[in-house]
Amino acid sequence: MKRRDFFKTVGFATIAAGVSTGLNGIACSKRKFMKGSGMKLSYEIKQLNLRHTWTIARNSSNFKQDVFVKLEKDGIVGIGEAAPNVRYDETPESTIEVIKKAIPLFADADPFEFVQLGYDIQNLCEGQTAGKAALDIALMDWVGKALNIPLYKMWGLDPEKSPLTSFSIGIDTPEVMAQKTREAEPYKILKVKVGKPNDEEFIKAVRSVAPDKPIRVDANEGWIDKEVAIRKIEWLVKNGIEFIEQPMPSRMLEETRWLRDRSPIPIIADEAVKSAADIPKLAEAYDGINIKIMKSGGLQEALRMIWLAKSLGMKIMIGCMIESSVAITAAAQLCSLIDYADLDGNLLISNDPFVGATLIDGRVVLNDQPGIGVKEA
Amino acid sequence: MKRRDFFKTVGFATIAAGVSTGLNGIACSKRKFMKGSGMKLSYEIKQLNLRHTWTIARNSSNFKQDVFVKLEKDGIVGIGEAAPNVRYDETPESTIEVIKKAIPLFADADPFEFVQLGYDIQNLCEGQTAGKAALDIALMDWVGKALNIPLYKMWGLDPEKSPLTSFSIGIDTPEVMAQKTREAEPYKILKVKVGKPNDEEFIKAVRSVAPDKPIRVDANEGWIDKEVAIRKIEWLVKNGIEFIEQPMPSRMLEETRWLRDRSPIPIIADEAVKSAADIPKLAEAYDGINIKIMKSGGLQEALRMIWLAKSLGMKIMIGCMIESSVAITAAAQLCSLIDYADLDGNLLISNDPFVGATLIDGRVVLNDQPGIGVKEA
Repeated sequence: MKRRDFFKTVGFATIAAGVSTGLNGIACSKRKFMKGSGMKLSYEIKQLNLRHTWTIARNSSNFKQDVFVKLEKDGIVGIGEAAPNVRYDETPESTIEVIKKAIPLFADADPFEFVQLGYDIQNLCEGQTAGKAALDIALMDWVGKALNIPLYKMWGLDPEKSPLTSFSIGIDTPEVMAQKTREAEPYKILKVKVGKPNDEEFIKAVRSVAPDKPIRVDANEGWIDKEVAIRKIEWLVKNGIEFIEQPMPSRMLEETRWLRDRSPIPIIADEAVKSAADIPKLAEAYDGINIKIMKSGGLQEALRMIWLAKSLGMKIMIGCMIESSVAITAAAQLCSLIDYADLDGNLLISNDPFVGATLIDGRVVLNDQPGIGVKEA
Repeated sequence: MKRRDFFKTVGFATIAAGVSTGLNGIACSKRKFMKGSGMKLSYEIKQLNLRHTWTIARNSSNFKQDVFVKLEKDGIVGIGEAAPNVRYDETPESTIEVIKKAIPLFADADPFEFVQLGYDIQNLCEGQTAGKAALDIALMDWVGKALNIPLYKMWGLDPEKSPLTSFSIGIDTPEVMAQKTREAEPYKILKVKVGKPNDEEFIKAVRSVAPDKPIRVDANEGWIDKEVAIRKIEWLVKNGIEFIEQPMPSRMLEETRWLRDRSPIPIIADEAVKSAADIPKLAEAYDGINIKIMKSGGLQEALRMIWLAKSLGMKIMIGCMIESSVAITAAAQLCSLIDYADLDGNLLISNDPFVGATLIDGRVVLNDQPGIGVKEA
């Protein structure tokens, strides 16, 4: 396939006549000229093949279909990715719908008014945050490239302060989970999916191979009885678990508060938190939040969530879906601000179409390229 | 006085040998070289003369001594200002103390790691947020200049969305207040200082000259009895007042909540809020917050406060102290994100040593210069 056919163009607004911008045209005096000169938006669905069949409390799968976005203007291309999640009523098709809705926004936008543009993206429809995330990532990638600096630098962050990332072991037979744990030897922290009646078996299988490794668990809302949940947590504590993510359904806030009052390890919200507005009410029931740019609808809202959670004294985790190096490298831009990283989504797929951040000594290490810093593999 | 004598140099760290950076050296690949190459920090106290003797509920004065800061590196100079406030135990001398404490920080800093550097500034000592603000403003001005873009652009904001600013009428005799109101004809919104037993006289004096202008009032913690306060508010409402700022002392949170439950107009926190950490507990007692960069310790914390207050559904005002165009223009960078602007501090002085944002049709209008966009007058 020829490179120019790679992405289907879904929107193109004419470049304003006689305007010369380009990389050197970012000074504010050119601002007026950039407005309304249009951004070209294109997308493509790509199938990401999983190394292992992936099972969590809700479902299982062998591949993932993500939607990749390109935003072009002045010879600069911003890249974004949507990892639609059935948990949030998202499919590749519904994602493409929101992307198409964004065409008029971008056709008339000054990308340097990215805050309002970001809000406009959020307001395109209810939900569909994966599609919104793709648009926001591509927008911020474009901005970083226009300024010729990595996004972490635009945001004043030291990329070397990123915490170690965990690697996730999906639900499977104890034998397969033990095997996955052996394969996860390069990773210094494990995250084990639980939320089934035989959770203890999973942990034992992992612990048998990795007796001393820090382990975090994620129940994905799998426990619905608080008394069962606290007994599970007490058992987990005895087995050296560091924290538990979303033990109960997000709607069960009171029960989670009850659980947190009794839990010796931190309880982190995942499905219960999508955007900044969710956070204040969660502070009483959870010790921390798992921010995912696919839930927040992009990097800008994720950064706002970090500031908010910090001011409330909550722990901050950045997690991911199963997604390529585009979304992982985008999320990693914020890692120096957080307590826990869980950015292994790209490591779970066998045909990552992009390269960006790399895993070195258990850390997601960013490069020095402008924007999010990814290119096609 | 010669220009090079204008600022006293208090700190200078040697430029790392053999390093060429300059304006074109901002690409990330140069990041390592910038670290430890040192920033030169200098300061000067300047007396700002007031057009009118200034009286609020607490005190009155004819002039103000502000501390101006310069941060130099690679031929780029960032400018900052501290407006010390006795309410917060700040004097020009205590401000200079915190500035001197910052010398080692800047001597070893990469200015593009401005988030951590900002936190390090905040952690230099308790309080003294005016001095910290001067350092943070100068740092962010430097960063904007290094990127050759205005700060509002780095933050993705449209400067044209700034709300009208109010102009403050200080406490005086009714005759003088009426005269000040006449002089305030160019301003489309007035803010009247109250908090004295004869508040009603002040409002009547202003209303006699400006019968239809929107008026906001600021009690500066002047009312200590909630029953008196609610009667004052009811009287104010009858006289078309838009909102009331800090009616009671900041320590009287319960009384303020009581007041807010009964007040038909919004109650805005001013002295009760300094930084983001203060905001969550205020959400139950106040409808909004007045952010001042002299209280928050700079622009970065002010921006974090905006995101936090927005997520809590609170109204946001940006206010000021009596300060020059440096601090006013810095604060104005954030104006497109807020509900109410009160940025008239530079208009109250007769010898502003800088020029920056200008008042046009009742709005503080930013220019297109990099950083905060100010230069010496």
